Formats: sequence, C-alpha cells, structure tokens
Amino acid sequence: MINAKARAVDGPDQPFRAAEIERRDLDAHDVLIEIKYAGICHSDIHTAHGEWGPVHYPLVPGHEIAGIVTAVGPAVTKYKLGDRVGVGCMVDSCGECENCRKGEEQYCLRGNVPTYAGVDKYGEPTQGGYSTHIVVTEGFVVRIPDTIELDAAAPLLCAGITTYSPLHHWGAGPGKKVAVVGMGGLGHMAVQIAHAMGAEVTVLSQSLKKKDDGLALGADHYYATSDPETFQKLAGSLDLIINTVSANLDLDAYFSLLTLDGTVVNVGAPGEPMSLNVMSLIGSRRSFAGSMIGGIQETQEMLDFCAAHHIVPRIEVISADEIDEAYKRVLASDVKYRFVIDTSTM
Amino acid sequence: MINAKARAVDGPDQPFRAAEIERRDLDAHDVLIEIKYAGICHSDIHTAHGEWGPVHYPLVPGHEIAGIVTAVGPAVTKYKLGDRVGVGCMVDSCGECENCRKGEEQYCLRGNVPTYAGVDKYGEPTQGGYSTHIVVTEGFVVRIPDTIELDAAAPLLCAGITTYSPLHHWGAGPGKKVAVVGMGGLGHMAVQIAHAMGAEVTVLSQSLKKKDDGLALGADHYYATSDPETFQKLAGSLDLIINTVSANLDLDAYFSLLTLDGTVVNVGAPGEPMSLNVMSLIGSRRSFAGSMIGGIQETQEMLDFCAAHHIVPRIEVISADEIDEAYKRVLASDVKYRFVIDTSTM
Repeated sequence: MINAKARAVDGPDQPFRAAEIERRDLDAHDVLIEIKYAGICHSDIHTAHGEWGPVHYPLVPGHEIAGIVTAVGPAVTKYKLGDRVGVGCMVDSCGECENCRKGEEQYCLRGNVPTYAGVDKYGEPTQGGYSTHIVVTEGFVVRIPDTIELDAAAPLLCAGITTYSPLHHWGAGPGKKVAVVGMGGLGHMAVQIAHAMGAEVTVLSQSLKKKDDGLALGADHYYATSDPETFQKLAGSLDLIINTVSANLDLDAYFSLLTLDGTVVNVGAPGEPMSLNVMSLIGSRRSFAGSMIGGIQETQEMLDFCAAHHIVPRIEVISADEIDEAYKRVLASDVKYRFVIDTSTM
Repeated sequence: MINAKARAVDGPDQPFRAAEIERRDLDAHDVLIEIKYAGICHSDIHTAHGEWGPVHYPLVPGHEIAGIVTAVGPAVTKYKLGDRVGVGCMVDSCGECENCRKGEEQYCLRGNVPTYAGVDKYGEPTQGGYSTHIVVTEGFVVRIPDTIELDAAAPLLCAGITTYSPLHHWGAGPGKKVAVVGMGGLGHMAVQIAHAMGAEVTVLSQSLKKKDDGLALGADHYYATSDPETFQKLAGSLDLIINTVSANLDLDAYFSLLTLDGTVVNVGAPGEPMSLNVMSLIGSRRSFAGSMIGGIQETQEMLDFCAAHHIVPRIEVISADEIDEAYKRVLASDVKYRFVIDTSTM
C-alpha cells in the first residue's frame, strides 16, 4: 500500500480534516500520480454533503486532478516517470460494453467507476483528488500538454470536458449560434471552447455582473436572463444552448430561443424534476438533451484543443486549509471561476 | 364565390349540422378540389370543442382531405382537371422565411395557415375538409398516387406525414430499434412506415388488445405498458421512440428504454405540462424532442413511399350524419384505426 495525505469529510455536515489514506500497490497497468493540483467542482460539494445519495465516509472528493507520474506498473506503455498527466471524473469502466468500445466510457453500461464515492474493481471505495497521490489504470489517465500549467489544467478534467463534449457532439462551429446559460466554472469554459470552435457565442446569465469577463473570454453577446426583454430579443435565434445551471429553470422560455431543430443540452441536473410544455418542442422540432462529461479519448482531444487555442480556466489557487471556506464561496457563486487546491499544502 | 356543402359546429358543445359555405373564387395559382373523403383526426375534436383556444364558429374541421381537381386558376402548372390530390394540415405559408425556403413550411416563422380554424391571406377564416369542395393554392396540394384509393389516402395527409416525418428525420431504418407508443390512428401508421423503412419495430400500448393488428401491420414486438416488466425487459434497448399519445406519461420511464443517444419524439402534446428528471437524459446523452406534421415536399415523398410499400391506413368509412357518433368513439379509443367521412353523403 502507498500512503497519501488527503483532506476528508466524515459526514454531511462535517468540516474537512487532514487524513492519511492508502492507495493500492501498482497493478501491471497502473500509474502512480503525485497530485499537484485538484480543482473544486460543485459535484464535490453535493457529494460531500450527501445530497446525491448515501456516501461512504470518510470521503475524499476531487475529480479535477493534475500531477506528475512517479511510478508505473510493469505493463504500462502510455506513460513514464515525470509525465504531466490528469485524471477526471472516472478511473475505470468495464471496457467491454458497446459504449466503452465506442470510447464513451462515461456511459459504460455497467457503470463507470467514479474517481471518488465509487467502488473500484477490487471492491474498495474510491477516494479522489484532494490528496497527494492517486493510483489509476493508465487507460483512464490523460496527458496534459506542456503549454498548460498544471494548476490551470486541473479544472479542464471536469469543467472542460463537460462542456467540450456537448459542444463537439452537437456541432458547435462556424455559422452556429451557441448560448451558454450560467457564467460559473462550467460556463466560463463553455464560452471559451465554443468561441474557439468558431461559433457565435451568447452568454445568458442572471445579471450583467460578469459581462466584461464573458466578452473577454470570447462571448459575442451577453444578456441578463432577469430581463424579460432578453427572451423577446433572442426568440428563435439560437442553434444550441448549453445549460450549465443545476437549478430549476423555466425550460419553455429557453426552448423559445431555439431555431428550427435547435437543442437545449443540460450538463447540470437539478435535484427535483423539471417541467416543460411539449408544444415548446413540437412547434420547431426542438430537442432537450442531457450530456455527462466525455470519453477518455475525447478528454485528451479536449486538452489538446485547449492547448492549441490557448484556452485555460480562470482559477483561484487555495491551500488545503481553505477548502471549507471555498465550498461556502462556491455555494454563494463567489468564485472567478474555479478554486484549485495546491496539494503541496496538505 | 363557390358554394360548397359542409358539416359545421356552432360552439364547443354543439352537434354537427349541415351547412352551406363559400369557397373563394380561384386566384391564378388556386386549385378547386371536389373533396371525396375527409379523415377525422383527434385534433378536429380538440379544436371543435374549443380545447385548444378560442375558435371562430361556425367551424368546419377536417385536414385529411382527398379529392379530384375540378378547376384550376390560369397560372396553375402542377395540376389539371381530374387529378387525384390531397390537402393536409396547412393551406399556405409565407414562402419567404428560412424555414419555408427549406421546405419546412409547417414551421413557417410567420405561422403557416392551418386548413381550418386559421386565417388566410385574405383575412378570412379557413374552413376544412368536412365539405364537398375546397380551394387551395397549388403549392399546398399534393398528388395522390394512383395505387392508393382516395378513402385510404385521406388519413395519410395528417396521420401519415406526422409519423413519417420524425421517422425519416431521426433515421429509422435497418439496424435501428424503433418503438411506437400508442396503437391508434397515428400509431398504426407509424408501425407500418417504420417497418417499411427497415427498422425493428416495437409497439408499446396500454394493453395487448390490438397485438394481432400490430404484428400484422409489421411490428416485430408488442408490449403492454401496463405491465411493469415491459420497462425492465426493454431498458436501454431502443434508438427511437415515437410517442403518439397526447396524454401525460411517465417520461422518465420511457427515457430509460433508450440506448446511448436515443430520442423520444412526441408528436402529440398533452394540454398540461409534462415533468421529467434531467438525470434520465444526462445518463445516456438522451434527447426528448417534438415534431409537427411535415413539409409539402416531404408529404409528397410520404405518399409515394406509402404507394411503393403498399402502406394504407385501416379505416372505417362513415356518412356525414355519423360525425358526432364518430367523435364519441374516437374519444373512447373505439376505432380501428381512422374514421373517414364519405363527403358524397353531405
């Protein structure tokens, strides 16, 4: 077993505490990663607080992981010591089902193994990236391009791929009008990626508070959804809307912004059911869809795309002692735009 | 003005009565059609009963029209006297907007002109096919292939195109698993068309009462949705579900039947909002969509496709005096599978 320092919570209402955890000894295809930075994703908070179902505590969250390879199993071919690598929201999948064979491991029919709060193939609970080390099979490790700093790379592993994948899948590009709902951790990535793909990008945010940032990141237009005129002005004009907001929204209002054959894609899921009027879809053959992170090969493509287009998240690097405070600020939408933990402070 | 006999209702709770209506004199591009048969669509009932908003009474419903050309305006080039023709759910559109130019007149950005309960370009209320004659601009008239009897052709103009269009748009064909929810007027067309397109067809009906018919029409499988095991057996197996039921359904249960990237398409719209859990979509990148009839060129394609594949609706021909009774039976789902009015009985 390999000892690692970590930050863990012991229950839904508990603060983070320093912990020692064990990582498994390397199997033939395993890579040991010395984690340098771990992003804080809203999912971490939901899970730590037990809002997404029962959790095995103590829990070490974190699925935006960037670090350096410090050991490899004997059969590893993709990575060598010193390689700059990342790990995202999953650390394994069956590898055999139809979806895995298509490179869509996130939709593994037997269920992928989440980076934390899951159970791995050895029957052990998985523990995430708020830690100094992690052991992951090489097939679920991606390479971080040299031009991306490790602290900035971390959020790409979830916020980046979660927005890149639907933008790519639904054909964001030249001639397409794409809107991004929400200017948070995911939204500020979606704006940059959609812009780099060549789409005309509109941000739909509650207020105009982050308008300057949105335009600087590549948005062509920026509207406040609190202004009812926004929905009149943009009616029937958008090809694709990426909704990064996990709260319940007036879906029909957003459908009304779509052109013929347009799609609203949710990458966030509110806890309670959402309501819609089917006529809002029928009237212009519109679709409402959902998308979840992306496949491993696609995650590598996303990293290479971000490197080629100089796309990086805007981050605030914090120490391990600041996680509780960071959670509070995420819940208050008081972060521009992603907290990243410097794991050397563990 | 051209006088026509018709059957009209004078209010939401009124029975049908014999009426004389006037059709406009032929404009340069107009065609006068002697209507032979008119199908009874569930939409006729909703509209006649005022359930879809205020209606201009007296109202003559009917948008599944089959007949013979008996006069043409001086500039008409597509049709000549004696041609067998049909008219569906719309009789005009702007012809200039992006959607009209794409041949998607049903999604005309200025609103298409519905065959009845609409207002035409002269500012007059439109009156539908429960009538002996109608005048329609040639661009909204389609040709009925010689091998399709006029009585059987009528329901193709709505039930046929409403199901053909989404099946075609979402790629029903060899290797695709398509389910049809509801074995009514639309459903029994969807089964035949999807089968002829080469898809593997499953019917999802409340009970097994119409199973023999479903299999005879080309379904490969037939399940009762009242049996909870149906949803376990078919979980994650379907590429496309065409939902012809206008009542509220447990959408999440139907989403759970879809494979990765599968789509549920509603062609019916319940009056009240529907509820869904976004996680049902996100988990396998599924979509929920709506579709409305089809374009004029596509309607012609559908007719030619049905002729080539010997597809016809199963109908019950009735006289004009039987409309009220037929409405009651449609509401009781007691029709196999479409009523068609013989307009010679007007």
